[in-house]
Amino acid sequence: MASIVEELEVIGRRARATAHKMAFLSTEAKNKALENIARSLKEREGEILSANARDLAAGREAGLSEAMLDRLLLNPERLAGMASDVRAVAALPDPVGRIYDMRTLPNGLQVGRKRVPLGVIATIYESRPNVTVDIASLCLKSGNAVILRGGKEAQGSNLALARAVQEAATKAGVPEGAVQFLENQDRAVVSHLLKMRDYIDLLIPRGGAGLIKFVFENAAMPVVAGGIGVCHIYLDASAEPEMAAAIAYNAKVQRPTVCNAMDALLVHSAAAGACLPAVAREWAKAKVEVHADPQALATLRGIPGLKLCLATQEDWGKEFLALVAAVKVVDSLDEALEHIDRYGSGHTEAIITRDYLSAQRFLNEVDAACVFVNASTRFTDGGQFGLGAEVGISTGRLHARGPMGLEELTTYKWIGLGTGQVRA
Amino acid sequence: MASIVEELEVIGRRARATAHKMAFLSTEAKNKALENIARSLKEREGEILSANARDLAAGREAGLSEAMLDRLLLNPERLAGMASDVRAVAALPDPVGRIYDMRTLPNGLQVGRKRVPLGVIATIYESRPNVTVDIASLCLKSGNAVILRGGKEAQGSNLALARAVQEAATKAGVPEGAVQFLENQDRAVVSHLLKMRDYIDLLIPRGGAGLIKFVFENAAMPVVAGGIGVCHIYLDASAEPEMAAAIAYNAKVQRPTVCNAMDALLVHSAAAGACLPAVAREWAKAKVEVHADPQALATLRGIPGLKLCLATQEDWGKEFLALVAAVKVVDSLDEALEHIDRYGSGHTEAIITRDYLSAQRFLNEVDAACVFVNASTRFTDGGQFGLGAEVGISTGRLHARGPMGLEELTTYKWIGLGTGQVRA
Repeated sequence: MASIVEELEVIGRRARATAHKMAFLSTEAKNKALENIARSLKEREGEILSANARDLAAGREAGLSEAMLDRLLLNPERLAGMASDVRAVAALPDPVGRIYDMRTLPNGLQVGRKRVPLGVIATIYESRPNVTVDIASLCLKSGNAVILRGGKEAQGSNLALARAVQEAATKAGVPEGAVQFLENQDRAVVSHLLKMRDYIDLLIPRGGAGLIKFVFENAAMPVVAGGIGVCHIYLDASAEPEMAAAIAYNAKVQRPTVCNAMDALLVHSAAAGACLPAVAREWAKAKVEVHADPQALATLRGIPGLKLCLATQEDWGKEFLALVAAVKVVDSLDEALEHIDRYGSGHTEAIITRDYLSAQRFLNEVDAACVFVNASTRFTDGGQFGLGAEVGISTGRLHARGPMGLEELTTYKWIGLGTGQVRA
Repeated sequence: MASIVEELEVIGRRARATAHKMAFLSTEAKNKALENIARSLKEREGEILSANARDLAAGREAGLSEAMLDRLLLNPERLAGMASDVRAVAALPDPVGRIYDMRTLPNGLQVGRKRVPLGVIATIYESRPNVTVDIASLCLKSGNAVILRGGKEAQGSNLALARAVQEAATKAGVPEGAVQFLENQDRAVVSHLLKMRDYIDLLIPRGGAGLIKFVFENAAMPVVAGGIGVCHIYLDASAEPEMAAAIAYNAKVQRPTVCNAMDALLVHSAAAGACLPAVAREWAKAKVEVHADPQALATLRGIPGLKLCLATQEDWGKEFLALVAAVKVVDSLDEALEHIDRYGSGHTEAIITRDYLSAQRFLNEVDAACVFVNASTRFTDGGQFGLGAEVGISTGRLHARGPMGLEELTTYKWIGLGTGQVRA
């Protein structure tokens, strides 16, 4: 334990010292480093894939599920995808150094804000090894030093990726220590990391609900987390069946395992008769399993090929991450708003309506990171919003809400340009 | 203890429920409430001043220092000042509801951000009773529910002020529960309050270093704090003695007990001979006590009326909050930057120079909430920056840095206005 603390102190001090230098890297040097990283993922493909093969074999032996093995898997296509994501980060504007809100005070003093990196970012993440490269690239571009702590199952893959990133970045003139990877898999590492308030400015957990809860409860430094999305679509009395079906299909089926996929559909009783069968016929084609409340169940019985059962209390407020949808009939917009307030996770909520006042009320009254009218919940995404790559989707309220891109990895300082002003 | 937990749970639930309603209060209703509060401070002057007199008597008996008794003191002028501050908050633009960053995606979906209140803010503060009214007004205007926990010495005054605020706000249609004041002075109240993550979105401690440290170490929710300012002024080789003297005088003498007052003066050796005596002659007029390093001491000996002694290690990095200044001679800008990096608190730092490149390096390389060229550190202030009243000056890096005004008491949500868009 003592040696873990010492080891982490060394890493923390190195990160802090490096962060000072990172803040002054030119955009050119950072983009060069990102280009090197992208190229290195191709050049070191053999080495990375063998490390990944060993992780996969160990995972199979340890009885990991097929879904988990798939998340762990790297192949030439996935590596090429990662390289292309790194190049996309290089192509984004550099958030550091932007001066804004500049004003001249009556006494002639000019004051304004200037974007600067946050400093040291640490991330604790679970199985997907691409997170190693994603987070390292985003931290690099935003001028932050980063400490990475990946999951045990992907340790070999993460290490191979981290080495590729480190070597490629250093060659472009990025200071050593910009990207540090914690090799020690002892659980005490995480516990101590969470106490390192003096060295870490922001902690970003990426993983399941258990990890995020643990981090919130134990971290001494600021945490921005997301990832949990219990998302609703509410079909208002005036919803058009065709639009409802298209959006509900897209939100549930296009990528069911992600946080912005729809979990529960709420339908106004006046729209249920026309909309629910239209939605369910589309869902049936994709084998969506429907957990319906008694009223919805009655309306949906007899849809050919629809997997249908009675919803239980546990279905409300559940993030399914699968081709399962809960469906409930409500008698008013108010009832829908109350349901969302009670069971939503503050991630993404949508209304389908023709009614202007319903749309306005939904936009105003729903308290979530993203609120949509007549659009799929799947749009909650940094890339879709035009922010570029994202570190995650924050469901917290401070600093960053919703997709967290490069700018959200920076802070600002006030600068004042005077000619001798004193305060009266 | 069980009853304290139950009592706080009731308060937390009420704050959360009220916050939902607060978010929809019109600017008109909020300004009406602020006007009522300002008027009520006058109308209830007798009641408030008698409560304050009892606090003062108890404080005198308990042996509070004159400085503490002065901070505790209310009188008709101070109450009028508080009322005028409340009216100033009413005059500020409402930060809630502003829609910005709106863009139209290639598929026609319009997305942007909308300012919304943070939700529930709690504040733990020490002796000055005006904080009760300041924070309540700022939270009210920004649409947040607030839970106030004041210091024991000011309990009677705080309670009288809180009652005046509550009654005045309720009369203007602000929901009850918008401003809750914790009457129970048991220490267990603070300990439990810091755990109420589900009910409190942001905790703002206002007080000394001990309180702030305790809150950071024990709070389960996000904390934004400030108040600790170890501020330096660096006189560059090219500093002009007259400007140096005027700014060093203003920064040290104008209001020595506040966090943006200067603590240490660093002087380039090439400027020491001309600048130090000029500065010291001004300081001598205000009886500033100078703790000088050996080189500065040699230069300053013989200045008529100057209180002068040799600095000790403890003088570096110390917030004096008094008419005391540490002075050190350095041999380069780099040495000054290193000293500030080591001993500064990340609050406010200033350089006095004619040299363009020194100014640029100082602005870029000093990592503090506010960095000034040729201006007094005393300008770090929400009012001076044109932000209006401030909740405090954040020395943290996330969410808010420097003066924290109304906008920093809000967050945003993303809104998306579609016509049936689905993700490709």
